[in-house]
Amino acid sequence: MTGLKKQVFAGTFISSKSPQELNYLHNALICVDGAGRIARVDKEPGSVSKLEKTLKTLGWDASEVDIHVAQPGQFFFPGFIGEFCCMIVRMRLLTIALDSHVHAPQYPNVGIFGKTTLMEWLEKYTFPMESSLKDLDKARRVYTACVRRTLSHGTTTAAYYATIDVAATNLLADICLDIGQRAFVGRVCMDNPTTCPSNYRDETAQQSLERTRETIQHVRDIDPDSKLICPILTPRFAPSCSSEAMRGLADIQREMDLPVQTHISENEGEIALVAKQFPESGSYAEVYDDHGLLTRRTILAHAVHLSEEEAALVARRGSKVSHCPCSNSSLTSGAARVRWMWDRGITVGLGTDMSGGYSPSVLEAARQAALVSRHVAMGVSAEAERERSKLTAEEVLYLGTRGGAEVVGLGDRVGGFEKGMEWDAQLIGLGQVDEDGMGEEGNVDVFGWETWEERMAKWLFNGDDRNVKKVWVRGRLVHER
Amino acid sequence: MTGLKKQVFAGTFISSKSPQELNYLHNALICVDGAGRIARVDKEPGSVSKLEKTLKTLGWDASEVDIHVAQPGQFFFPGFIGEFCCMIVRMRLLTIALDSHVHAPQYPNVGIFGKTTLMEWLEKYTFPMESSLKDLDKARRVYTACVRRTLSHGTTTAAYYATIDVAATNLLADICLDIGQRAFVGRVCMDNPTTCPSNYRDETAQQSLERTRETIQHVRDIDPDSKLICPILTPRFAPSCSSEAMRGLADIQREMDLPVQTHISENEGEIALVAKQFPESGSYAEVYDDHGLLTRRTILAHAVHLSEEEAALVARRGSKVSHCPCSNSSLTSGAARVRWMWDRGITVGLGTDMSGGYSPSVLEAARQAALVSRHVAMGVSAEAERERSKLTAEEVLYLGTRGGAEVVGLGDRVGGFEKGMEWDAQLIGLGQVDEDGMGEEGNVDVFGWETWEERMAKWLFNGDDRNVKKVWVRGRLVHER
Repeated sequence: MTGLKKQVFAGTFISSKSPQELNYLHNALICVDGAGRIARVDKEPGSVSKLEKTLKTLGWDASEVDIHVAQPGQFFFPGFIGEFCCMIVRMRLLTIALDSHVHAPQYPNVGIFGKTTLMEWLEKYTFPMESSLKDLDKARRVYTACVRRTLSHGTTTAAYYATIDVAATNLLADICLDIGQRAFVGRVCMDNPTTCPSNYRDETAQQSLERTRETIQHVRDIDPDSKLICPILTPRFAPSCSSEAMRGLADIQREMDLPVQTHISENEGEIALVAKQFPESGSYAEVYDDHGLLTRRTILAHAVHLSEEEAALVARRGSKVSHCPCSNSSLTSGAARVRWMWDRGITVGLGTDMSGGYSPSVLEAARQAALVSRHVAMGVSAEAERERSKLTAEEVLYLGTRGGAEVVGLGDRVGGFEKGMEWDAQLIGLGQVDEDGMGEEGNVDVFGWETWEERMAKWLFNGDDRNVKKVWVRGRLVHER
Repeated sequence: MTGLKKQVFAGTFISSKSPQELNYLHNALICVDGAGRIARVDKEPGSVSKLEKTLKTLGWDASEVDIHVAQPGQFFFPGFIGEFCCMIVRMRLLTIALDSHVHAPQYPNVGIFGKTTLMEWLEKYTFPMESSLKDLDKARRVYTACVRRTLSHGTTTAAYYATIDVAATNLLADICLDIGQRAFVGRVCMDNPTTCPSNYRDETAQQSLERTRETIQHVRDIDPDSKLICPILTPRFAPSCSSEAMRGLADIQREMDLPVQTHISENEGEIALVAKQFPESGSYAEVYDDHGLLTRRTILAHAVHLSEEEAALVARRGSKVSHCPCSNSSLTSGAARVRWMWDRGITVGLGTDMSGGYSPSVLEAARQAALVSRHVAMGVSAEAERERSKLTAEEVLYLGTRGGAEVVGLGDRVGGFEKGMEWDAQLIGLGQVDEDGMGEEGNVDVFGWETWEERMAKWLFNGDDRNVKKVWVRGRLVHER
């Protein structure tokens, strides 16, 4: 992570200026220092021809600089940020944004959900897979595949739910550090004997907290300054946790100012269960709030069925939401209302929620976010509001980059191309169709007459990992094809 | 198309036994004669070892036979059948099944729809693109890309909407025949001056019919027995056609027993327009019926908002429906109820409806059919009916193969692996993850412990053209990677 060569990136850079607008820089330059930080952005078209002058201004010698030039039609885009449930920990892990929600241990189950909904799916597919990852050889194989696969899709930051197993969770952190993916790694806490399987749960709240501290310590040992890997407190979700465990996690949160990830209001059966289990709290959101877990650093996955009161509470506390459209459609959970949450002041990012979601790709999550927002619109009768419900290509790309960065608390470090930010980026190349109608590898066919806005829409709707030519995290090249 | 070598295919064969069930043949043999027809199916496991005996029974000499063996983990699957709107003809082309609905001229616009709905989208994106394809160089480039791309996704049969241009439509038929894709090619009829652009419409009903006959004649000339290419009557949709043109097309239909493709009940604004334009008909379906176009050979794309009465009429007439979930979500048209249509006795297939739909892949349409059925379920309050609304992996794969074959009237020729059917098939390979967690190219990662049913689900949800290793139409190898 240190001793990188200085780098200059040249060509077209596209990133979110706001949720509604993409910023296009053409024939521009971005200089990245040896710590992987953006030292300079030359936005003016024609900057490439002034490279020598730029280097001189920075006091950099051309001989010590690697230069990366995007080919015509290619562009640099911020890396995606999202949440992944690595396998499935105690009942189900949630995340959102930059893949702000991924269950790494569930990766082998992607696409496998049959006709189940949440609770059934957890019992049938998720817990058995997660529990089996205490076998470290298996965990290494699954986590390596998961990290490589998500990187190949341009995910530079992932918020991972691991499993309850300390050694396997630590291994996931090691693998992310080694391969070079920025990650939040959380050991899943689940100690409620009435809802968790007897062979896959923490024995006591005490054990839940101790084991959590062990994984925090491990991450601190391997990456003391959280340059790349950060521990994240991970109560699976309220139904799988005792009040004691949740309060204990909130204590750790305050003590160490750590991020928290959990699930909220994904499914109606789950909501009923929470109401029954925590009758003293007024709502699902209040359960977390009553236990001290609704913090500015909390990432709530799903949030499909939030009430007005809950949304107001989440906004007031500054907690964030990870929208997981692939998962919510697959498990028939519902259609989360992103515009509605934005209108209420909630920060939203994207999660793949593998394997509740079927895809390891944040671009797929962005695509499905656009489609799901149209299903939300179909249920709205007032025409103006129906129109507003729909998310544009620009907005869902924002969710996967800057939105996700805000959700995981890295809004000042990643998600855009500004001076002082770290170089977490992907080089995107779209396929060109030649004069004979022959295309290139990949599913995006550019005929040449498309505007840049149209190219972005084509990429959003038909792009895949083949369009991700290179991926950098903190200036380090971590994937190439 | 003649003079093919005899072929034997060996390994695993998977195809739909019924909408609910896939049939798995392992270590089996299928023998295909020089006309591309299945001469024999040896279903018993172990058939491969009896190859010599099988050839002897058929009276085939081993020296005159090409043998194709699926590698372990690979399987043969029927080619997909779907509808494609090649570009966008007068207001919008609809199709369903096997890709039973594709607008070939719209292919360059995939993914580009912004926040528009149907009518706006037609004006803004579709008509200008379609109209420009009277430039035959451009048409050749676009259609070649479209046919190659759909074949690479395993689409062996496509029902294409071309444009109003005779020469460009004929060119599409030529390209399909040359490259070897089974296709229904329709010149789009649109002669209503109040709804069609002045620079992109048939001048009169008379001209609409004459030009249609010209393209029919061309297809008859190049493929007299419709071995591969079949003309299809293509009134864009009721709003863009005069009564005279529709009646004239119905006359041609009866005269030549040709298939018909059109759109129905996609969008509420469109439905209101139809009611206004045809006040003498009781419903959208009745408009087609009153003009003689609701035949057993008619493919109705979309059918999102059919009433009970319309569904009963469509079922009574034996007309078919092409479900286009990608398009319906993208354009916020609504969520079509496949189970509801099945319950009413309507035959349903899948359409990509490019570029209303963003993807050239019938597998993507099948995936979205599964997801959209879950959005249908979310709107159903009765639990049992909600559950029934959801489509399984088996059911959506049926829609894309046998369902599509029924929709285009080829149920006895393609869509399955029975003796006497033609060899329209794809060889599918999924990626294996090695012991170090390194996967292969493509997005389907098989760890080795998955059942065949789970592999099929993984393929459905993460598969793409990289998993399509070879594609045959009528025994001819038409795509390979």
